[in-house]
Amino acid sequence: MADINSKLEIGVTTGPIRGSRKVHVGKLGVAMREIELEPSSGEPPVRVYDTSGPYTDPDATIDIQAGLAQLRREWQLARGDVEEYDAREVKPEDNGQLGPDRSGGVPPFPNVAKRVLRAKPGANLSQMHYARRGIITPEMEYVAERENLGRARLAEYKRDGQDCGAAIPDYVTPEFVRDEVARGRAIIPSNVNHPECEPMAIGRNFLVKINANIGNSAVASDVASEVDKMVWAIRWGADTVMDLSTGRNIHDTREWIIRNSPVPIGTVPIYQALEKVGGIAEELTWEIFRDTLIEQAEQGVDYFTIHAGVRLAYVPLAAKRVTGIVSRGGSIMAKWCLSHHKESFLYEHFDEITEICKAYDIAYSLGDGLRPGSIADANDEAQFAELYTLGELTKRAWSQDVQVMIEGPGHVPMHKIKENMDKQLEACGEAPFYTLGPLVTDIAPGYDHITSGIGAAQIGWYGTAMLCYVTPKEHLGLPDRDDVKVGVVTYKLAAHAADLAKGHPAAKVRDDALSRARFEFRWRDQFNLSLDPDTAEQYHDQTLPAEGAKTAHFCSMCGPKFCSMQISQEVREFAAKQNQPSDAFIAANADAEDAEKGMEEMSKVFKDKGQELYLPADEEG
Amino acid sequence: MADINSKLEIGVTTGPIRGSRKVHVGKLGVAMREIELEPSSGEPPVRVYDTSGPYTDPDATIDIQAGLAQLRREWQLARGDVEEYDAREVKPEDNGQLGPDRSGGVPPFPNVAKRVLRAKPGANLSQMHYARRGIITPEMEYVAERENLGRARLAEYKRDGQDCGAAIPDYVTPEFVRDEVARGRAIIPSNVNHPECEPMAIGRNFLVKINANIGNSAVASDVASEVDKMVWAIRWGADTVMDLSTGRNIHDTREWIIRNSPVPIGTVPIYQALEKVGGIAEELTWEIFRDTLIEQAEQGVDYFTIHAGVRLAYVPLAAKRVTGIVSRGGSIMAKWCLSHHKESFLYEHFDEITEICKAYDIAYSLGDGLRPGSIADANDEAQFAELYTLGELTKRAWSQDVQVMIEGPGHVPMHKIKENMDKQLEACGEAPFYTLGPLVTDIAPGYDHITSGIGAAQIGWYGTAMLCYVTPKEHLGLPDRDDVKVGVVTYKLAAHAADLAKGHPAAKVRDDALSRARFEFRWRDQFNLSLDPDTAEQYHDQTLPAEGAKTAHFCSMCGPKFCSMQISQEVREFAAKQNQPSDAFIAANADAEDAEKGMEEMSKVFKDKGQELYLPADEEG
Repeated sequence: MADINSKLEIGVTTGPIRGSRKVHVGKLGVAMREIELEPSSGEPPVRVYDTSGPYTDPDATIDIQAGLAQLRREWQLARGDVEEYDAREVKPEDNGQLGPDRSGGVPPFPNVAKRVLRAKPGANLSQMHYARRGIITPEMEYVAERENLGRARLAEYKRDGQDCGAAIPDYVTPEFVRDEVARGRAIIPSNVNHPECEPMAIGRNFLVKINANIGNSAVASDVASEVDKMVWAIRWGADTVMDLSTGRNIHDTREWIIRNSPVPIGTVPIYQALEKVGGIAEELTWEIFRDTLIEQAEQGVDYFTIHAGVRLAYVPLAAKRVTGIVSRGGSIMAKWCLSHHKESFLYEHFDEITEICKAYDIAYSLGDGLRPGSIADANDEAQFAELYTLGELTKRAWSQDVQVMIEGPGHVPMHKIKENMDKQLEACGEAPFYTLGPLVTDIAPGYDHITSGIGAAQIGWYGTAMLCYVTPKEHLGLPDRDDVKVGVVTYKLAAHAADLAKGHPAAKVRDDALSRARFEFRWRDQFNLSLDPDTAEQYHDQTLPAEGAKTAHFCSMCGPKFCSMQISQEVREFAAKQNQPSDAFIAANADAEDAEKGMEEMSKVFKDKGQELYLPADEEG
Repeated sequence: MADINSKLEIGVTTGPIRGSRKVHVGKLGVAMREIELEPSSGEPPVRVYDTSGPYTDPDATIDIQAGLAQLRREWQLARGDVEEYDAREVKPEDNGQLGPDRSGGVPPFPNVAKRVLRAKPGANLSQMHYARRGIITPEMEYVAERENLGRARLAEYKRDGQDCGAAIPDYVTPEFVRDEVARGRAIIPSNVNHPECEPMAIGRNFLVKINANIGNSAVASDVASEVDKMVWAIRWGADTVMDLSTGRNIHDTREWIIRNSPVPIGTVPIYQALEKVGGIAEELTWEIFRDTLIEQAEQGVDYFTIHAGVRLAYVPLAAKRVTGIVSRGGSIMAKWCLSHHKESFLYEHFDEITEICKAYDIAYSLGDGLRPGSIADANDEAQFAELYTLGELTKRAWSQDVQVMIEGPGHVPMHKIKENMDKQLEACGEAPFYTLGPLVTDIAPGYDHITSGIGAAQIGWYGTAMLCYVTPKEHLGLPDRDDVKVGVVTYKLAAHAADLAKGHPAAKVRDDALSRARFEFRWRDQFNLSLDPDTAEQYHDQTLPAEGAKTAHFCSMCGPKFCSMQISQEVREFAAKQNQPSDAFIAANADAEDAEKGMEEMSKVFKDKGQELYLPADEEG
């Protein structure tokens, strides 16, 4: 198991993932993970996408109090379009501490930056802005290297998939990345004040990504477990992390998370703004919201969920629903709109928000405040009314070269999933879709990582660029560490299944390597190539704990005598020794009379070769 | 929690599922489960399909040593086409006890029938045979009642789904069941010697069913846990159970299971036959196999997996594969064919097997011995060559009025799933498809209930009639009790998602009831309506254990201030009080100038009504 670093006040999980090692590739040193296979396999290591940051690198020094190294700082400064300035003072209300009680258990991050970056007047730091001017940034180069993985080795791979309109290239060039970002089909979330972030792309012509939500709430949780949840989530494969904290200490918790995060961090700024007004939605103002955006921009939040599509006119559409408005942000804005009977200030001030995004390179994640919360409400008028408004806002953001992705549902039965994707592509000009599941039934609380994983795999296949995870605790409680892992692994497998179905050229390498390991009884390789080597080995050991069983040429399901893999190997060896091509075999068989004699001969040969390859059970079991 | 009946040597789980009670419906007393809702809901109980048998009926006396009551015996005798005769003597080799060691820990079932039933000479006991002669059997009537569930209450439900060619009626009549069975589109597995079985149908115009595999192996397991696994699996929703035991005590273990099973039991007879020849595939003979079929037919096995599609000519096709032949039955037959260089005796003697099926009403489950064991091998030549042979065999079985279903893969990426369904429908004349998953990626051992649940939901939507479950231990070890439950619940939700997507008229009732309970914070109703009330409540209590939290109008995810459901209710109440139809609202808003004044008025009304409905956190949390 991984070591728990207990020396620091906030301990996080470090150490390599079992059976693999960190490698740095190319001139930018793009981090990847390599899984070594047993020498008997004769196969090279399998390189996999690595979201885990330095925490899995034994050569890295992890100091949570100092934060991560600033990978991107030099690139940012070299562009000559940033200025440094004094950060906004932290106010008590930033941490939700309006009253006299200031104890929250969250110490301020000790290494906080007092001077922060933003665009020089008139400049635009957005990756989209560079892309549209034909500039290939180091971020784009990093993404290209990262997405290619083992594609250089893929000469023997035939493309096999249904891409549903995607245009995944055989090989990702920096120019391809630039072009995708320029046309808005991909985003690289990269706040200038989050230089610790390893660049990654979200877009349907790249690997399907997943997001993990963390965050304390008013009821439970603390900063130590939230930071470790982030480290834990990226260890298992979260490509981005959203900090959805509510209640107290929001600002300080977020600072700890961002400074230690190698992945983009997203937030829903309205949650913090609401805390600043004591939880009374109708007391929210544009000024308080704007101040919150600046606060979070300076900390380095990479993407903002903005529920600007919840327009006043759409709110009553949700009144007829079985489950009304289930998005927290959506319901806050709905309440504000109804209460004031005014158009949403997010919608009214959208272009001003965009100005802030430009100055820091924050991507929009346009929130689906009216997403369906039940099968009954899927694909209804409220949902699609909002979607078309998100399409309008996408174009407004793009007109200022600001990056956008679009959030999607929610609860949707399988036959209505495709319509969500199709409408989103049409309404939002192919801006990346970022969906929560969707859950394909409402009747399995406790298993909603699965009900949603089913929908996520499908919509990922159809073209969704990032899948927001759901944990087993969804609808019931706050996820703990185990739930976060189960949620991440479930979504990782759903995203990978989508990549396979889309025919992503690099996806199948890992499946094939694992399948060969399975067929050849290389148990260690099978564990190490899996998404969760620890669990795979633990499950194996529950039935066959002996170390010898790791090299046994059978497993506990069938035991030594019944193993079909073993028999298949015999079949294969026999076929190989006979050098009997299958077509000839069929032809021979078709002519039964002629074949009879040949078969008897072959039968004798097979028997002579000693077809009993079984190992005695007691030797290995 | 359920009681554990510890008085008997073999303890099984009894007691009602939390929050629900057993009801018996119609003149045949069809068992169903009713979930009572809180009186505040004003809603009638929700009736759900019930596979659990008498074990969840507090009024039933459970005596594992006696077996269940013989529900169907009178119906069978009334048909006048059966004869009673002395059962075949149990031989030592039936329990795999060829050598001197006869201790196996499995006592013979004490209440074993010495006289068994079969068809009178020239008769055919198959439900298909009755159906084709226009006879509606009590089994068909039972199925009709059972499938209808709450459909009588469905006047308000609009059909909503993509049926992918299915023809699900609004209401299931006995005549509809007869017709489906007659044309081979559904089967009612019902061995005359398993009168304890509650009739159920497998067919794409009925609810999607799931199967759970149990069975000891040569490496681990014992009869007590196997019987309880069956009871446990049906408790959570397994519609049929396959006993895949290998190793010793196969006969006695199966007897205990069948005598206590209210659901159809399937087997793979070649497993037992192989034990009888000491595990040496090439020593299998038709005579030994035939004797095994009779042995199992007399015990009451309801369907046989027969790998008669693994023809000699197809075996070399599998040699090129990444994972060869992964079906145990398939690999045994492949080895036999290669070793003897003869056509499979299952294929050669197929019509004789059909004669046995006729005499006892055993359904075929035509095995897919060449199913793909990896993404790399999906939809290959070997697989489809076998499928078309299964189509040929289907027609041969149907020519003798014997019921057939077809087994399917396996490991298949999402984009190749539909082809499996389409080819199966075409090749096998719409005989019910019965698939294992399929798993949509190979890289998640430990999570293959999920990788396969994704594929299962999809292929169920496309038309698969029964989904064979996969547990988290797949590829790694033998499932324990917890794994069986997780596998069953996962497949139950996948099957239900498929029913929803197909537009099954009864499916959505439960989703809607649960969603209303969720929206109205009826926590107990939400738990009780879920597929696994125990887990749902346990997860809830991990964050908010207090009993008061069960009635709280918020939950731990958002806490009391942020609850979007709460805000939605306010929106709804407000909209209702204003009696403001949404269209008028939109129109008013479109004309912004005119609307301004009206909005201000409405705003005032909303504020006057006191929109703060929050409960203080410390009162409830």
